[in-house]
Amino acid sequence: MGDQEVKLLGLWASPFSKRAEIALKMKGISYEFVAQDLSNKSPELLKYNPVHKKVPVLLHNGKPICESVVIIEYIDETWKSGPSILPEDPYARSLARFWAKFIDDKCLPAIWKVRKSEEGEREKAIEEATEHLVTLETELKGKKFFGGDEIGLVDITANFIALWLVVVQELVGIKLVTREKFPRLCEWIDDYLNNSVIKETLPTQEELVNRFRAK
Amino acid sequence: MGDQEVKLLGLWASPFSKRAEIALKMKGISYEFVAQDLSNKSPELLKYNPVHKKVPVLLHNGKPICESVVIIEYIDETWKSGPSILPEDPYARSLARFWAKFIDDKCLPAIWKVRKSEEGEREKAIEEATEHLVTLETELKGKKFFGGDEIGLVDITANFIALWLVVVQELVGIKLVTREKFPRLCEWIDDYLNNSVIKETLPTQEELVNRFRAK
Repeated sequence: MGDQEVKLLGLWASPFSKRAEIALKMKGISYEFVAQDLSNKSPELLKYNPVHKKVPVLLHNGKPICESVVIIEYIDETWKSGPSILPEDPYARSLARFWAKFIDDKCLPAIWKVRKSEEGEREKAIEEATEHLVTLETELKGKKFFGGDEIGLVDITANFIALWLVVVQELVGIKLVTREKFPRLCEWIDDYLNNSVIKETLPTQEELVNRFRAK
Repeated sequence: MGDQEVKLLGLWASPFSKRAEIALKMKGISYEFVAQDLSNKSPELLKYNPVHKKVPVLLHNGKPICESVVIIEYIDETWKSGPSILPEDPYARSLARFWAKFIDDKCLPAIWKVRKSEEGEREKAIEEATEHLVTLETELKGKKFFGGDEIGLVDITANFIALWLVVVQELVGIKLVTREKFPRLCEWIDDYLNNSVIKETLPTQEELVNRFRAK
């Protein structure tokens, strides 16, 4: 598969874009990263993701795949090199899809709301985010990663929690996730960020804080 | 697989619940339907879907699967009897997942907003819903079903548009989808509702209107 063209239209500071990059790197796929400017969308982005006009877009031999979780499943089904990102067993796969969806539908909007909320609404936003994080804390009991012994779909989807959440905490000046309240989630963050592929792919906390402060 | 226990915790008037039933019927799987009362949630529902406490929940030999699209994929991967619900090719699968997600993330909330909106906000809600329906109209060009010649994941996910949307139109007293503006979508609705499995599974428009009027 050496003559295949793999391009990723992405953004270095986007957790969604980074999901696609992590999946490609886990599989050992070479790809060209084409940085996008969302304040001035490229003809390529508008052509290949006309519905949402958002990153990431994976281009595989010219064919576009959009939506980060859809991209991860595509990568896992297309390249059999490297570790499996979703488990083989249909029941285990359904659980992985369930939790990935939970993170996207519940955790991310709640955490984002903490950042965007005005003083008066912040307490409610924190309460909601905490409730979802407690659910994840429970899910991690007895496991190293959400995927079990190895990083899988849910861990990649949760990269927002491993890094961007910490950035949100710093920007807003609060501490949602403490070792006291969330011992498993904190261990997971450590293990996740220490993984060689993740370390190589994600930006540093400082880079992200600077980027979001500048906006 | 005759000695397997398949139960569905569901609601006859829920488009999400009906998605799971359509997938089971397409595969020819016998199942026990356990009707739920969401105003007085059963211990079974709370036990098997503690995160969302919502229908549908598929119980396969006692193991719960939640979230309707996750359930459809599980059914397709578990039972090889009957037609495939997702295509074999990874790229075609990614497109099916993309459109199913588009329907859930964009179309459904927009159509629901039309129903819930107050007089003043209704016009904006209609505009948003129309925009998404135009996207679906375009996607249907040159195809009988979203899945091609046969009903697939996207068609099942779109059952809301084939039936519940019509009900919303009647309740609100508007007409979003006309044959003039949406010729392909209207043909799709006809073909979809005429399919024997769909006809056998979905309630009638009248039953739904009565149900929603009573609420």
